[in-house]
Amino acid sequence: MKKIITISREFGSGGRTIGRMVAEKLGMSFYDKELIEKVAEESGLSKKYIEEGGEYAPSKSRFAYSFIGRNIDGMSLDDYIFMAQRKVILEIAEKESCVIVGRCADYILRNRDDVLNVFIHSDMEKRAERIVKLYGETDKSPEKRLKEKDKKRSINYKYCTDRVWGMSQNYHISLNSGAIGLDTCVDIIADLAKKL
Amino acid sequence: MKKIITISREFGSGGRTIGRMVAEKLGMSFYDKELIEKVAEESGLSKKYIEEGGEYAPSKSRFAYSFIGRNIDGMSLDDYIFMAQRKVILEIAEKESCVIVGRCADYILRNRDDVLNVFIHSDMEKRAERIVKLYGETDKSPEKRLKEKDKKRSINYKYCTDRVWGMSQNYHISLNSGAIGLDTCVDIIADLAKKL
Repeated sequence: MKKIITISREFGSGGRTIGRMVAEKLGMSFYDKELIEKVAEESGLSKKYIEEGGEYAPSKSRFAYSFIGRNIDGMSLDDYIFMAQRKVILEIAEKESCVIVGRCADYILRNRDDVLNVFIHSDMEKRAERIVKLYGETDKSPEKRLKEKDKKRSINYKYCTDRVWGMSQNYHISLNSGAIGLDTCVDIIADLAKKL
Repeated sequence: MKKIITISREFGSGGRTIGRMVAEKLGMSFYDKELIEKVAEESGLSKKYIEEGGEYAPSKSRFAYSFIGRNIDGMSLDDYIFMAQRKVILEIAEKESCVIVGRCADYILRNRDDVLNVFIHSDMEKRAERIVKLYGETDKSPEKRLKEKDKKRSINYKYCTDRVWGMSQNYHISLNSGAIGLDTCVDIIADLAKKL
């Protein structure tokens, strides 16, 4: 049985929902927004900054912030957030059995052998349908919103891990949730975690 | 139930063996070397050329061949092999339920909705162990042999499909056979093919 499951996911793929369902099925703790609160506590930064900084490429405001030299402990704000996030994730993993969504947890926990790393993706069309259903329409097309998020997550993952986001080789299992269905994804992941 | 399963794989990951086992389990035909024979028949080219040309980047000899202008039907040799391969794979898919290993079959069959696309990968260390056990030692280190094969497959896949080889998004499911084990990979793939 694997003690920790990390879920990396494309925006709109249902990866977060799958993570929550797997955690419920296996009786594990679930860390998504909960992680942001812990990182905010650890770092002393606002939740808004953490939410942007931990998963997305440098935003304009954070970029400007670092330009004017507001570094913390000699680190850029991005590095500082990543370090706080890393510390929180390592502590959680030490303490309890859990599912962690996003935030480069797959990379941060790479030296443990009790971790199952999962990547959830889906076709653009299905993801577009899902984000409109969940978050509503905006002035941008859903495809544009998805492409922007993909790009930001990809740049952030590269920055934190020096790896290419979405490469099969980074994960033990990758699943197309649109083709396979959320429930079947949950079953496959939970069974695999129990078996290994 | 999916009618066709394509298996793309890293050299030394056991992907071919997994493919054969899935075909046996589901009572499907299995195409690996069998495909090369059919393409040789279709194209009139030797099996050796097909074996190189269908999955690997241009070899020096094939490169020289095309330099001296020996094109067929106005196509380069690589394109000619790809076209013959494509024709054979489309015909097989039309005719019967089967597992096809490699040869960009995932891409060639992308317009069918009865196909399950699988990618099998594994850690360098486990793959090195496997190729030494199966194919013996050579004067090159196993790591060097693996890296060369990876590079060739990657260039060939890009050439034929304009996609990045190994990206999760190209497949319905990707599995790390070294971490998960060959038998469990077979069970997951066969169950999924039956379910979808």
